[in-house]
Amino acid sequence: MVEPRMRQESYKSFFPIFEQHPSLIYLDHAATSQKPSMVIERMRQYLEESNGSPHRGAHLLSVEATRQYDYGRGKVAEFIGANSEREIVFTKNATEALNLIAFSYGRTFVDSGDEIVIAITSHHSNIVPWQQIAKEKGAILKYLYVDQEGDFLPGEIDKITPRTKIVAFPWISNGLGCIHDPERLTKRAHEFGAVVVLDAAQAIAHMPVDVKEMGIDFLVFSGHKMYGPTGVGVLYGKYELLEVMPPFLTGGDMIEYVEEQETTFATVPERFEAGTQHVEGVVGLVAAIDFIASIGLEEIALKEQRITKYAMKKLSELKCVQIYGPKIDKDRGALVTFNVEGIHPHDMATLLDQKGIAIRAGHHCTQPLMKYLEITASCRASFSIYNYVEEIDALVEGILYAREVFGYVNG
Amino acid sequence: MVEPRMRQESYKSFFPIFEQHPSLIYLDHAATSQKPSMVIERMRQYLEESNGSPHRGAHLLSVEATRQYDYGRGKVAEFIGANSEREIVFTKNATEALNLIAFSYGRTFVDSGDEIVIAITSHHSNIVPWQQIAKEKGAILKYLYVDQEGDFLPGEIDKITPRTKIVAFPWISNGLGCIHDPERLTKRAHEFGAVVVLDAAQAIAHMPVDVKEMGIDFLVFSGHKMYGPTGVGVLYGKYELLEVMPPFLTGGDMIEYVEEQETTFATVPERFEAGTQHVEGVVGLVAAIDFIASIGLEEIALKEQRITKYAMKKLSELKCVQIYGPKIDKDRGALVTFNVEGIHPHDMATLLDQKGIAIRAGHHCTQPLMKYLEITASCRASFSIYNYVEEIDALVEGILYAREVFGYVNG
Repeated sequence: MVEPRMRQESYKSFFPIFEQHPSLIYLDHAATSQKPSMVIERMRQYLEESNGSPHRGAHLLSVEATRQYDYGRGKVAEFIGANSEREIVFTKNATEALNLIAFSYGRTFVDSGDEIVIAITSHHSNIVPWQQIAKEKGAILKYLYVDQEGDFLPGEIDKITPRTKIVAFPWISNGLGCIHDPERLTKRAHEFGAVVVLDAAQAIAHMPVDVKEMGIDFLVFSGHKMYGPTGVGVLYGKYELLEVMPPFLTGGDMIEYVEEQETTFATVPERFEAGTQHVEGVVGLVAAIDFIASIGLEEIALKEQRITKYAMKKLSELKCVQIYGPKIDKDRGALVTFNVEGIHPHDMATLLDQKGIAIRAGHHCTQPLMKYLEITASCRASFSIYNYVEEIDALVEGILYAREVFGYVNG
Repeated sequence: MVEPRMRQESYKSFFPIFEQHPSLIYLDHAATSQKPSMVIERMRQYLEESNGSPHRGAHLLSVEATRQYDYGRGKVAEFIGANSEREIVFTKNATEALNLIAFSYGRTFVDSGDEIVIAITSHHSNIVPWQQIAKEKGAILKYLYVDQEGDFLPGEIDKITPRTKIVAFPWISNGLGCIHDPERLTKRAHEFGAVVVLDAAQAIAHMPVDVKEMGIDFLVFSGHKMYGPTGVGVLYGKYELLEVMPPFLTGGDMIEYVEEQETTFATVPERFEAGTQHVEGVVGLVAAIDFIASIGLEEIALKEQRITKYAMKKLSELKCVQIYGPKIDKDRGALVTFNVEGIHPHDMATLLDQKGIAIRAGHHCTQPLMKYLEITASCRASFSIYNYVEEIDALVEGILYAREVFGYVNG
């Protein structure tokens, strides 16, 4: 049997960035993950061996590009348990996917007086498009509020009523780390005929997902937070919903026939993919899924939960640290947001950077949540398969170093 | 002095795909270009050494990602002669850039009864968004028609009147190869206060561009047609126009402050870049610009014009071939569209593929043009720095081979 520490080290060895920066402690996975060599290599290989314009030609490279692109659709469908690859739309990032839902489904099916219900824990990308639709349609935007641990307050779920058309929330909050229960909200939403939009950006690389089992209507995530490249995101939508949605971006490849004054559009999912798509991005995403599968999401979750628990324990032991979100005995995503007494998060991040530790500081694109919780900014350490417990010790030392720099004694 | 043939061969050696496919004759640059190793390498290097989330953190990698992303903006600005890097917006492709103009500028400034004037030579991506806006606003969509060579018919330009709000056209038509004169249309459009949207997708890798000199209002192109990666496109807009435009996609990174019900947006250009951007795509685009600069656009244009002229000459000599667009004595882009008597373009492309020759067949996303010219489909051979005259000879031989297969004798 391999020693646990060795196994952890070996995960790190998959990632070339740690060869370039051997002492780097990267705790910013929630912003973007590092890329294993198999992802980088497969993109290189595609560009060097198979690059062509998909769906546009009869020649060898075009056929090969089409094959790889279409294979990616099937791969993603399988990865999230979709019924069919036709329920998968590629976008440039999770944000475009959410905009697509809002401006295609939302603009079509939300009317004046209807209600859109979103969790206060939502990322801006799952808030601002709904504000725009609510304003445009004269609909009402309501928030589901949470307690300090990120649980919905008693009765909040009752805000989902027959007037509700959309229920949107993150699976894991990138600002608090709390995990919302998709099935509970989906059940309530479906009782009243509302559709559920689940932002899985912070979940997709960390826990198994089965959209069929969850019964979710729409789910979005991005490649770059799951060991894949930037420039590629995914929109999953139930086929019967996608089918009745008008196009969002229009142009090449998403049409059936263009007349001078009228256009008929392609079927789903091509209808939502205008212009030349990011083929090498899809190739990289496929490699990222293969990478995740080679370790196994259960193994990833287990390791990350161990790290997260350890971080919660060590940070809780520091009197100067205030942790946000779920308490140590509860489940949380692989991230901890916190503040250190007397030190602004940006100063904290800068001082940790001097020690080779990368965390994020700021509002984490969750300003309504921050304002609601009366936090101006926070530090966020987020974890991945390539982190290990000694790095948490280094984080704790870094925090104590920062306290020292700021003139505090005894931590 | 280097022999011409050797110099041409040496261009090919920059492209790893020709090592993998040594006998490949790639005449489909207009759909997507092949990538030189410096583009692939720089993207790999970025992912292995510098990958981070830009604009989002204080740590080393985030700062480096931000630096490279922002450098890319300046690089593109310089490449096209923009006044400032703040006039450059990164999109996922040229299609998104055109949609952004239509749905932000168009939706804001086009009113009922206004006119949108577009060239019949336009690509679907510069037609369908304008159809959508015209329909939504009750505006009138008018076409500028051309003769068989792609020149605007006498008097067509008079369709640009005080009622015109938008004038949109391709610099080089991907369906005919004709080159429109941006300055002539821009002068007329500006007389009446209309803005000009120039689709430079087919021009950007083939001739020098200076947006200031042309006085153009908006210009779009994509990375993957200029030796760069897919997933990255560019919108150039005059700063004073971008500044008065509302956001298009909304979410992270493009906001100033998000309240529960209201959002204020970032300044230009960040206002138009929602969510995590395709950083390695921008890095690849910078490398592509460096690649182009290392040869020089004048040299590229010279070489491509020679190839194109040669192709025009050789194809004209075949009685079975009908060429579309400008006659041999006139300027044209680095592409030739044609049909071979008795052979459907798709069959032609398939038979050429058997001989290792990649061309495109179909409507080239220009159905209104095709219908107007009464062509159902055509073959397109498009050229780049890595093509040479012997490849045109092979194309001619391939056409004669196809004629033979179809039972024609003597070509």
